[in-house]
Amino acid sequence: MISILRLGHRLHRDDRISTHCGLVARALGAQEIIYSGDKDDKMIEGVERVKQRFGGRFAVSYQPNWRKVITNFKKKHYTLVHLTCYGLPLQKKITSIKKNKKLLVIVGSEKVPGEVYQESDYNIAVTSQPHSEIAALALFIEGYLGKKALTKTFPKAKVKIIPQERGKKVID
Amino acid sequence: MISILRLGHRLHRDDRISTHCGLVARALGAQEIIYSGDKDDKMIEGVERVKQRFGGRFAVSYQPNWRKVITNFKKKHYTLVHLTCYGLPLQKKITSIKKNKKLLVIVGSEKVPGEVYQESDYNIAVTSQPHSEIAALALFIEGYLGKKALTKTFPKAKVKIIPQERGKKVID
Repeated sequence: MISILRLGHRLHRDDRISTHCGLVARALGAQEIIYSGDKDDKMIEGVERVKQRFGGRFAVSYQPNWRKVITNFKKKHYTLVHLTCYGLPLQKKITSIKKNKKLLVIVGSEKVPGEVYQESDYNIAVTSQPHSEIAALALFIEGYLGKKALTKTFPKAKVKIIPQERGKKVID
Repeated sequence: MISILRLGHRLHRDDRISTHCGLVARALGAQEIIYSGDKDDKMIEGVERVKQRFGGRFAVSYQPNWRKVITNFKKKHYTLVHLTCYGLPLQKKITSIKKNKKLLVIVGSEKVPGEVYQESDYNIAVTSQPHSEIAALALFIEGYLGKKALTKTFPKAKVKIIPQERGKKVID
């Protein structure tokens, strides 16, 4: 069980980055994404729209108070994993993290409050290089779920892509 | 050896997405990214700046004519891998792709010309779901390079992040 908390969303500037975080979370098998920061109904509707068309169970919501999210998930005994290039290497910690069945994965935006580092059970770096919270999230979920991340099925899809060697095949 | 061709960059709209593609390519061990589409010096300088500070060898360039890039890499006997949600599953093709030592990995933007599907040796889907070219690129490189993708070292770095359980440690 994986929930994602996307911190510090900024209107316009983070529009597509936050959308990609949501779509990646859904495609690779997380159950939920909670957005914090600026309220952005249009961005959230975009993620919802993909879910409506391509199926599967995936919850998208907005919570202005990220501290409340963290407190709630701690109460529900989730393990908090904060993805940051300053943390410990994914490959050294993933075996330990896998022992936990319920994760809240926190992905920040530009500036993450120190409190998040303190409150998290794990601060995890997907390489100690600056790159992308989207890539970090994808590699983390795949590291945690393994092969399942790439082979998830999505019930009640209105639209389905049929893999092709060349070209596009979509069942509507 | 992995080179990336980022197709159809659009000024402003793709600014951060294309930047993330470049940073992910560098962080995970590709040798090069070539941008096509709109000319965007500011975006390219952003990727260059990270390279200057964090070290390593990584080439960033712009080529308005992507057909020329494809032709050049074919002449140099590179295998062309186009990442698209319409392609064949990564997990079914990665063993075959790994037999090739020189890859040009093509990541598109909104609309990819049919020619790219035809010219590519492999059209590869990282899940058959819509999500993110950044995540697809990250998972593809990690699938191809394996553990090396997360443990690459970067010579001549001016700045280095030292992994920490909590907080940040950076050597300047």
